[in-house]
Amino acid sequence: MSDRNMMGFCPSIKTVDSTLRDGGYVNNFNFTDEFVQDLYTSLAAAGVDYMEFGYLGGREMCNLADSGRWKFCDDAKIRSVIEKTGLRPVKIAVMADAGRSDCDNELPPKDESVIDLVRVSCYINQIPMALDMVKTAKAKGYEVSCNLMTVSKVRENDLAASLKMLAQSPVDTVYIEDSFGNYYPEQIVELAGKYLEILSPTGKKLGFHGYNSQQLAFANTIECCRVGADYLDATVAGIGRGAGNCTLESLLCFLKNPKYDVVPVLDFITKHVIPLKNSGASWGCDVPYILSGMMNTNPSSAAKFIREGRTDYSRFMQELMEIV
Amino acid sequence: MSDRNMMGFCPSIKTVDSTLRDGGYVNNFNFTDEFVQDLYTSLAAAGVDYMEFGYLGGREMCNLADSGRWKFCDDAKIRSVIEKTGLRPVKIAVMADAGRSDCDNELPPKDESVIDLVRVSCYINQIPMALDMVKTAKAKGYEVSCNLMTVSKVRENDLAASLKMLAQSPVDTVYIEDSFGNYYPEQIVELAGKYLEILSPTGKKLGFHGYNSQQLAFANTIECCRVGADYLDATVAGIGRGAGNCTLESLLCFLKNPKYDVVPVLDFITKHVIPLKNSGASWGCDVPYILSGMMNTNPSSAAKFIREGRTDYSRFMQELMEIV
Repeated sequence: MSDRNMMGFCPSIKTVDSTLRDGGYVNNFNFTDEFVQDLYTSLAAAGVDYMEFGYLGGREMCNLADSGRWKFCDDAKIRSVIEKTGLRPVKIAVMADAGRSDCDNELPPKDESVIDLVRVSCYINQIPMALDMVKTAKAKGYEVSCNLMTVSKVRENDLAASLKMLAQSPVDTVYIEDSFGNYYPEQIVELAGKYLEILSPTGKKLGFHGYNSQQLAFANTIECCRVGADYLDATVAGIGRGAGNCTLESLLCFLKNPKYDVVPVLDFITKHVIPLKNSGASWGCDVPYILSGMMNTNPSSAAKFIREGRTDYSRFMQELMEIV
Repeated sequence: MSDRNMMGFCPSIKTVDSTLRDGGYVNNFNFTDEFVQDLYTSLAAAGVDYMEFGYLGGREMCNLADSGRWKFCDDAKIRSVIEKTGLRPVKIAVMADAGRSDCDNELPPKDESVIDLVRVSCYINQIPMALDMVKTAKAKGYEVSCNLMTVSKVRENDLAASLKMLAQSPVDTVYIEDSFGNYYPEQIVELAGKYLEILSPTGKKLGFHGYNSQQLAFANTIECCRVGADYLDATVAGIGRGAGNCTLESLLCFLKNPKYDVVPVLDFITKHVIPLKNSGASWGCDVPYILSGMMNTNPSSAAKFIREGRTDYSRFMQELMEIV
C-alpha cells in the first residue's frame, strides 16, 4: 500500500463530481437545464475530471413518471446541455444500476456517444449481473467502473471473492462505497489495503465514494486517497441524500494539482446552491445520521425521522437497535 | 508512537466536555442554570470524565460586564449548580487563560475547591507565563493541562522548544489545539508523533482539541486518539463558535469503553440543544469555514462573512488571500 506525499500531487488522481446524481435526491432530480449547464461549465473551469449525470434507464424498475428530468439520462439529453457550453474538457459519467439500467439497448457505441465513463453499481449479490454490464460497456468502448454498494454490510470472504472476479474482468476501476457512512478513517485505510491487494496486480484502479453520516465523508476520502485511491467522488457543497457527501470544494483544496481551481465551484454555490437551499432542499450531518451511520444501517430511517420533525433521538436509537 | 486497537478500549482515554466554554460563544455564555445543571447530570449518566466550565477570571482583560453568566466562573458559581444534582462523578475543569486568569488569587487550594482540572491556555509567546500558571495550579493541588493554541501557526523549532519546557514542567497533559481547523488527519497523526516524542519520556499525557472548520474535528480527534492521545475534547451536538467542535455523541459511539452511554447526551440534545438552535444560536461547518480552515486563518472572518449574510464565497477567498 502506497503512502502518498499529499503536499505534492499525483497526476493519476481524478475527481468525479456526483452532484447531479447523488445530489438529485434532495429535489427529486428536478434540476433546471441552466443548473446542469452551469455545473458543467463550472466543473470545466475548476479542472474537475468527470461529471456524473443520472442513471442509465431501460429496465422495468425505472419509475420514470415519478422522477425529475435529470434522474435518468441518455446521450441525447446530456448532449442537449453540454453542447451549448461549447466546452468538452470534463469527461461525462453515467451510472448504470444493476437491475435498472440496460447497457445492451440504452448505451450506444462509444464513438456515437458523449458519455466516457459507465459506473456500474451493484449489491454484492448482483456481482455476476454487474460483470455482464461491465463487459458490455467495455466492449462498446467505454471506461468502466464497478461501484459495489453498502460494502460495510458485506462479509469479508464474499468481498474477497467478488474483488477477485473484478480483478479478472475488463473493469478499469473498482469503488469502495461507504453507502451507510459507517467507516472510520482507520477502517477505510485497512479496507483500501484489501481492495488494492487484490486489484492492483491486474492494474485496476481504486475509487472512493463516501457518505457523510458521521461527518467523515471528506476525512475518509482523503485518507483513502493517501493510501492509493485514484478516483475520488464529491459533490458541490456536499449536496446529497441525507447527510450528504464529500464536499468538492474541500477536496479541491486538499488536492494540490495546479490544474484544480476551487473558485468556479464557489461561484456555482453562490449562484445555484444557495437558492436550492432557500427553496427548502436540505442535506447535511445531523444526530440521526450519526446514529444510523454508527449502527451501519440505511440512512433512510434517519431521513424519515427528520422529515417527521421528530427530535426524540434516544427513542430513535432504540428503534435502530430494535429494542422497542 | 502507539497504534491502538480501537475495537477495544483504553482505560487511560478520558473525554472532556467543552460545551459550556466553547459552546458559550454561540449565545455569549447566557446559559440558564437549568441548562448547566442538566448538562452535568447528563454527562454523569453518560460516563463522561470531565466537564469544562468557563474561564477563571481575575485579570484586567476580563470584560465581565459584556459576558453572560457562564463565561467566567469560580468555585462558588460551579458549586451552586452541581451541588443541587447530588452527584459528583464528573470531574470539573476550568480554563485559565494566560493574560486573563489569575491563578494566584482566583484559585483556592484544591481541598477547598470543586475544581479538579485547570486547563492553562496560551499562545506560543506566552509559554513562560503559562508555565508559571501551571506551577501555581499544580502547587495548589490540581490536575493541570497546558493548551497551546493555534499550533498550526507555530514554527516547528519554537514548538519543539516549548514542548521541551513543558516536558520539564509539572504539567500533566499537553494539548494539540487545532484552533483554526487547519489540519488534515495525516498531519494530526504526524504532529501527535512529535508531541509524544518529546512529552512521553517524562510521563506527560497528550490531549486533542479540534475545530470543525473543514469538517474534520471528529476525524482528527479519533485519529489523534488512535496514535496515543488520552484527553479528547468534544461538545454536545458539536456546539461551538463558528463551525463548532467534535461532537460528543460521535466520540462516545467511537470509544467502546462500556462505561460510556450516549443516551443521556441524546436526551440532553432533545431537551436543551434543539431549543437553543430554535432561539437562533447557530454553529456548524459551512463554505466560509472550509476556506478559512484551508487558509490557516482565524475563523472569525468567516463568522463575520456569515453574520453579514454574504454568499460571495470567491470574493471571500480573495480577501483571505489578501489579493483584493
